[in-house]
Amino acid sequence: MIPSIEWTSDNKVKMIDQTLLPHKLEFLEFDNYRDVATSIKVMNIRGAPAIGIAAAMGMAIATIEYRDLPKEKFLESMEKAANIIRSTRPTASNLFWAVDRIWKIITSYPDSPKNLSELVIEEAKLMAQEDITVNKNIGKRGAELLQDGDVVLTHCNAGSLATVQYGTALAPVRSAIEQGKKISVIADETRPRLQGARLTAYELQYDNIPVKVISDTSSGLLMRLGKINKVIVGTDRVTSDAVFNKIGTYLVALAAKDNNIPFYVAAPSSTLSLHETVKDVTIEQRDSTEVSNVLGKVQIVPDGVECLNYAFDITPFRLVTGVITEDGVFTHKELLKKYE
Amino acid sequence: MIPSIEWTSDNKVKMIDQTLLPHKLEFLEFDNYRDVATSIKVMNIRGAPAIGIAAAMGMAIATIEYRDLPKEKFLESMEKAANIIRSTRPTASNLFWAVDRIWKIITSYPDSPKNLSELVIEEAKLMAQEDITVNKNIGKRGAELLQDGDVVLTHCNAGSLATVQYGTALAPVRSAIEQGKKISVIADETRPRLQGARLTAYELQYDNIPVKVISDTSSGLLMRLGKINKVIVGTDRVTSDAVFNKIGTYLVALAAKDNNIPFYVAAPSSTLSLHETVKDVTIEQRDSTEVSNVLGKVQIVPDGVECLNYAFDITPFRLVTGVITEDGVFTHKELLKKYE
Repeated sequence: MIPSIEWTSDNKVKMIDQTLLPHKLEFLEFDNYRDVATSIKVMNIRGAPAIGIAAAMGMAIATIEYRDLPKEKFLESMEKAANIIRSTRPTASNLFWAVDRIWKIITSYPDSPKNLSELVIEEAKLMAQEDITVNKNIGKRGAELLQDGDVVLTHCNAGSLATVQYGTALAPVRSAIEQGKKISVIADETRPRLQGARLTAYELQYDNIPVKVISDTSSGLLMRLGKINKVIVGTDRVTSDAVFNKIGTYLVALAAKDNNIPFYVAAPSSTLSLHETVKDVTIEQRDSTEVSNVLGKVQIVPDGVECLNYAFDITPFRLVTGVITEDGVFTHKELLKKYE
Repeated sequence: MIPSIEWTSDNKVKMIDQTLLPHKLEFLEFDNYRDVATSIKVMNIRGAPAIGIAAAMGMAIATIEYRDLPKEKFLESMEKAANIIRSTRPTASNLFWAVDRIWKIITSYPDSPKNLSELVIEEAKLMAQEDITVNKNIGKRGAELLQDGDVVLTHCNAGSLATVQYGTALAPVRSAIEQGKKISVIADETRPRLQGARLTAYELQYDNIPVKVISDTSSGLLMRLGKINKVIVGTDRVTSDAVFNKIGTYLVALAAKDNNIPFYVAAPSSTLSLHETVKDVTIEQRDSTEVSNVLGKVQIVPDGVECLNYAFDITPFRLVTGVITEDGVFTHKELLKKYE
């Protein structure tokens, strides 16, 4: 397991360029928050928790750029940076959660920009560390749901690569295997950007965890044939009435329900946004070429035919067996009671 | 609309090479039944009705090869040819239906091989003509289900390219448009072989019928957002308890049910196999590279990771609103009563 993102000793943001996986493991290093924002937008880094940390580190980088300005100018510039980082992707809560957490530090202390910059850098590093701790706790809580021999279906990548390390949806799998259980994973390829085929398969193979890849069209049949025991997915935002996650999640949840297979959502509490409902959330629509041209390498649709490309799906809570947070496993009602 | 397959005046089988679409429109011509069998297997031609006609024409080509043999040798050779053609793909009923129909002619008349060959060729040509008539009737029956302004989702390609001409699932769309209704289509891309993105989009664009392509992961969300009014899919085999069609169909049917959207199956009566149940049907498993390597052009899965590739899905009748045959639109009960 390689950290997907880290703060370097010379104050840069270093991340795996996930657009090149599974073929090349290469790293990007940024010392400018605009580049960090772009890396979120073009999905060099992706996955709700990882995006949150990238946003926090982007803010930290911005404080370095602006820390020699007078306080008022500093605040003005940081507000602009915050807005640019916030505008990269609209659906994942963690992005807003992370920028807000950093913003609170900037505005809560009467310190000089220089001191504030130090505080923000420490906070961003702490958030990265917390992410790993949270994921390990999700792993422990979720592992109790898995039995020796289970085959777990996951959609998209909510693994180590979607977080700083260890993952959310894949954390229970990792933890159960550490406990000595025999667990294997089936990864939905996850069109259009194929995070399941490229990233989930890559990171599990890297860590010697058994994984097979299927087309997104196959999950229902495999459930019907008895080849899947549990489903665990990640999430980009949990509202009081639904789970937002990668497009295709709703179909998986419907199939799980129809086959009496438990459907769990691994959700660090930073993805919970329980004061909101479905109508408050903007579903990101991305460029249609992500559908028409697979990974920018092979055009699959005739010239001139339009494609629709909604990036996230809405899964109503009636299809969700339980939500795994760092604090435990909760039914819908229990979740609302615990966190509202 | 170009016929996907035809019998040429110089006794050859001519077909569109559908593996090259949507980028190139090229034709293949065969004067050897083994090549016709291979074209079915590697999916130069695909779609249950078109496969049936290819099988019949393959048998006809074989009679030309063997018609100078003594009767007994002729029958022996034709039996071998029938077996080779039958073994190309295991799921579509039409393949077996077509070979059986030709076989009946070969064994029912006491004629010479030469005369039998003429009869078989005429029968194969008749079957191709019948296919078009059946599809136009499916179109007429199905068009009554569509209202002006409807957006119809379809999965895979059950259009003109899946038949001799006109299509099954797309026939109601064509017919409704001919009646002056404004209808548009949303095509699931249909991984792994992308028949929706490549073929449905191609043939509808060719005929100026509005079409948009989506990833297979998107149908549920679009239904939820109210952007789809009806679903029509084709089928490879209808048993007494379920509809067999391209992998992914079951997920679409679940989403349609969950959103109260009618889900119709267009099924020429040659695809009905109502004396069978789910347990009688072999679901074809194809090479895993169809999943790991998109159209043989871009590898999306790390080396060494296994992929599963089941080609067909099982959709139980409780999810099917109606079956459109050339004789009318039937509920499950009505269908069993009419055809059993």
